[in-house]
Amino acid sequence: MSAPDSGARRSGSTRRQFLLGGAVAGVGAAAAIGVDLALNQNDSSAEQVSVPLNGDTVVPFFGVHQAGIDTDAQAHGTFVGLTLREDVDRDGLRRLMRILTDDASRLTRGEPALADSEPEMASPPARLTVTFGFGPGFVARAGGVAPSWLAPLPAFAIDRLQPEYSDGDLLIQFAGDDPTTVAHATRMLLKDARSFAEVKWMQHGFRRAYGSVAPGTTMRNLFGQVDGTANPSPGTRDFDTVVWSAEGWMAGGTGAVVRRIQMDLDTWDMLDRTGREQSVGRYLHNGAPLTGTDEHDDPDFEATTAIGFPVIPEFSHMRRARSDDTTQRIFRRAYNYDEPPTGDRVSDSGLIFVSFQADVDAQFTPIQRRLDELDLLNEWTTPIGSAVFAIPPGCAEGGYIGETLLA
Amino acid sequence: MSAPDSGARRSGSTRRQFLLGGAVAGVGAAAAIGVDLALNQNDSSAEQVSVPLNGDTVVPFFGVHQAGIDTDAQAHGTFVGLTLREDVDRDGLRRLMRILTDDASRLTRGEPALADSEPEMASPPARLTVTFGFGPGFVARAGGVAPSWLAPLPAFAIDRLQPEYSDGDLLIQFAGDDPTTVAHATRMLLKDARSFAEVKWMQHGFRRAYGSVAPGTTMRNLFGQVDGTANPSPGTRDFDTVVWSAEGWMAGGTGAVVRRIQMDLDTWDMLDRTGREQSVGRYLHNGAPLTGTDEHDDPDFEATTAIGFPVIPEFSHMRRARSDDTTQRIFRRAYNYDEPPTGDRVSDSGLIFVSFQADVDAQFTPIQRRLDELDLLNEWTTPIGSAVFAIPPGCAEGGYIGETLLA
Ligand code: HEM
Ligand code: HEM
Repeated sequence: MSAPDSGARRSGSTRRQFLLGGAVAGVGAAAAIGVDLALNQNDSSAEQVSVPLNGDTVVPFFGVHQAGIDTDAQAHGTFVGLTLREDVDRDGLRRLMRILTDDASRLTRGEPALADSEPEMASPPARLTVTFGFGPGFVARAGGVAPSWLAPLPAFAIDRLQPEYSDGDLLIQFAGDDPTTVAHATRMLLKDARSFAEVKWMQHGFRRAYGSVAPGTTMRNLFGQVDGTANPSPGTRDFDTVVWSAEGWMAGGTGAVVRRIQMDLDTWDMLDRTGREQSVGRYLHNGAPLTGTDEHDDPDFEATTAIGFPVIPEFSHMRRARSDDTTQRIFRRAYNYDEPPTGDRVSDSGLIFVSFQADVDAQFTPIQRRLDELDLLNEWTTPIGSAVFAIPPGCAEGGYIGETLLA
Repeated sequence: MSAPDSGARRSGSTRRQFLLGGAVAGVGAAAAIGVDLALNQNDSSAEQVSVPLNGDTVVPFFGVHQAGIDTDAQAHGTFVGLTLREDVDRDGLRRLMRILTDDASRLTRGEPALADSEPEMASPPARLTVTFGFGPGFVARAGGVAPSWLAPLPAFAIDRLQPEYSDGDLLIQFAGDDPTTVAHATRMLLKDARSFAEVKWMQHGFRRAYGSVAPGTTMRNLFGQVDGTANPSPGTRDFDTVVWSAEGWMAGGTGAVVRRIQMDLDTWDMLDRTGREQSVGRYLHNGAPLTGTDEHDDPDFEATTAIGFPVIPEFSHMRRARSDDTTQRIFRRAYNYDEPPTGDRVSDSGLIFVSFQADVDAQFTPIQRRLDELDLLNEWTTPIGSAVFAIPPGCAEGGYIGETLLA
């Protein structure tokens, strides 16, 4: 018998109060669902709240769209780019996608894959999602018509791309709140994909753990910035317009951009707080625009300082990333990465930048082009990997992901 | 505004019931603390329970012992081995440990380190602990008397040790339930250690997420085995005897062994379920010994099968790891690792095996020697890293870790 939390106490409360806190947790738990809590992550005077034990929470696999896109981002994300083996033809792709669909549909329910070698590891699902994307090579092999934007992005001056983080024929995005479940699912699918494809790259990323901040709290990246504020909200018409494609076999699908962006925390440290806030145009404290007080306040790009400079600088990331052209919008769903440093460094960190948009060329590329031209953040960030995938629509039970291309 | 959990449902319940479930969460939350819940991780008929939002939970840093040893193991562990720079003398070590103690005491409270470059990242603490250990080089540099066991382990036939995962002058173990907090704390301390020491190795590991299984559930390793059953329980006299040293500057401290052990999941897959269970002597289903039904049942090593063989085979890991000699006991606190595979493999996984014991030579080494001679698990496991550290005692507020050696 182990003694959970031995020696642990809650800040500002005794163990006794902690247990009593638990006894009134229900109200907090209910309040925490779907609403923006007053509970600020830095506010230690906040009331004790609970969250449901979320191991058993299932994100439905089958549906019009694939899961893992409009799903409230889970704590852990593993991104895998695969290269198809030479001898895999259209029939092979169909077999592959049937198998992987079956695996994913079971594992996301918390059930073992067929012939799961470690069936107990399939549970708890903890909001596991598995999302598939097709690279240009996959669509060509399928004999399909690729969306016009399905190609490597144009080269940008800021890029220092490494092949080991770039491109690929097949993307599998595993995301879930439990890293053990994510690891198991990854292995099961890669084993089943093995005779069809080999791993080209794999990237592990994370956000705040489930249960450590109130649900709905915007993530922070490793620069300490609130990251993900100005993002379309799943479930809104706005989101649907930005994200879902309506064309051909891609109807109900979307385009994915996965870019590995190194963040140089060592040089970032040399920048003072004002400089940091100006580089994005938002406060570090709570992510409010420099012209506002709350995270979701609208930025005022016209506001000027006493001496006439824009409060939100021209070179700021937010200003450069935002367009008046409402078609140039994307949905961002990034993960932090943190790898063992090499040489004399103390960190090797960054962002697995992930965005979903119906049309990569029309929506993503103009933004990236503007950022390439001017964005103060570029001083501390370097794209080292880049890949574009067509995310096909979801499927109904009995169907398989990719059927609109392969059937 | 984001829509948390959009599209998510709880298995076997509607969203409405989910919220109602939250409303009676208190009982579950209270019941989940300190008791072994009937809630089995595979039992989907289990009642809805909640766990307290644990972001604000603080594990006290100051105390007789360092935290992170008898602390109920957190979801994420980062282990860093550092090499002291040549010019660091005893005074330098004292300065280093004062700084790192200060950092650790603040960050584990959820407060920024002094001159924290990303102060917002210090919160929530989510049970962060920071634990320091000294290698032979550290103690020598301090001019102290090293415990007799403070040296690399003897060579074992099974070892394929790589220097990039072995040895080191200073160990820092970061553990916490939130990977973002762990990443931040790691960076803060490594920055402050930078002029004194450089990173020799860093290993990231994980267990089940907080909130995904009931507190107190024994972890599973990536072979799918319940791992950690026969382990002294923190808070018992048994634990204290096994773990805490009573000698000299190490009084209240302990010895740490950190071994990186690769687990070959690809060949493990070829073994059937019976073979797997026999290799350890326990059932995969719930970790019960092959002679019992519940995880914590005592194994019966005398029991034989109908044809006269021991039910728990002679070559099984459990049988080989257990000794009649009660001094040969250790406290295990391992983490899984899962790295991107290379070449044609689909996984690169294993265990960051971590054990604490007062005397490494007397307690750990005989076990490892027996396992080296015979242990069926060796067929699928390979130690690729190994390090031994003296974990000094804790300190009171105003003091610093290592003061019993350095003052
Ligand atoms: C490591 C690299 C990056 C970092 C650290 C970063 C960080 C941020 C931060 C802190 C914000 C403000 C808060 C928010 O609205 O989320 C933001 C906004 C935004 N970023 Fe990035 N970003 C990075 C790369 C990119 C890239 C590659 C793109 C697309 C090409 C991009 C597009 C955007 C957009 C569209 C916004 C919202 C602008 C608005 O309408 O207010 N970011 N980013
Ligand atoms: C990847 C390598 C290893 C794996 C997968 C592994 C797995 C297991 C499993 C599944 C159990 C049974 C459940 C339990 O009591 O925790 C166990 C028990 C045990 N293991 Fe390991 N183990 C590994 C390495 C080691 C090493 C290196 C040592 C020490 C040298 C060790 C010492 C023990 C001990 C002392 C027990 C408890 C035996 C008893 O009294 O019942 N293990 N291990």
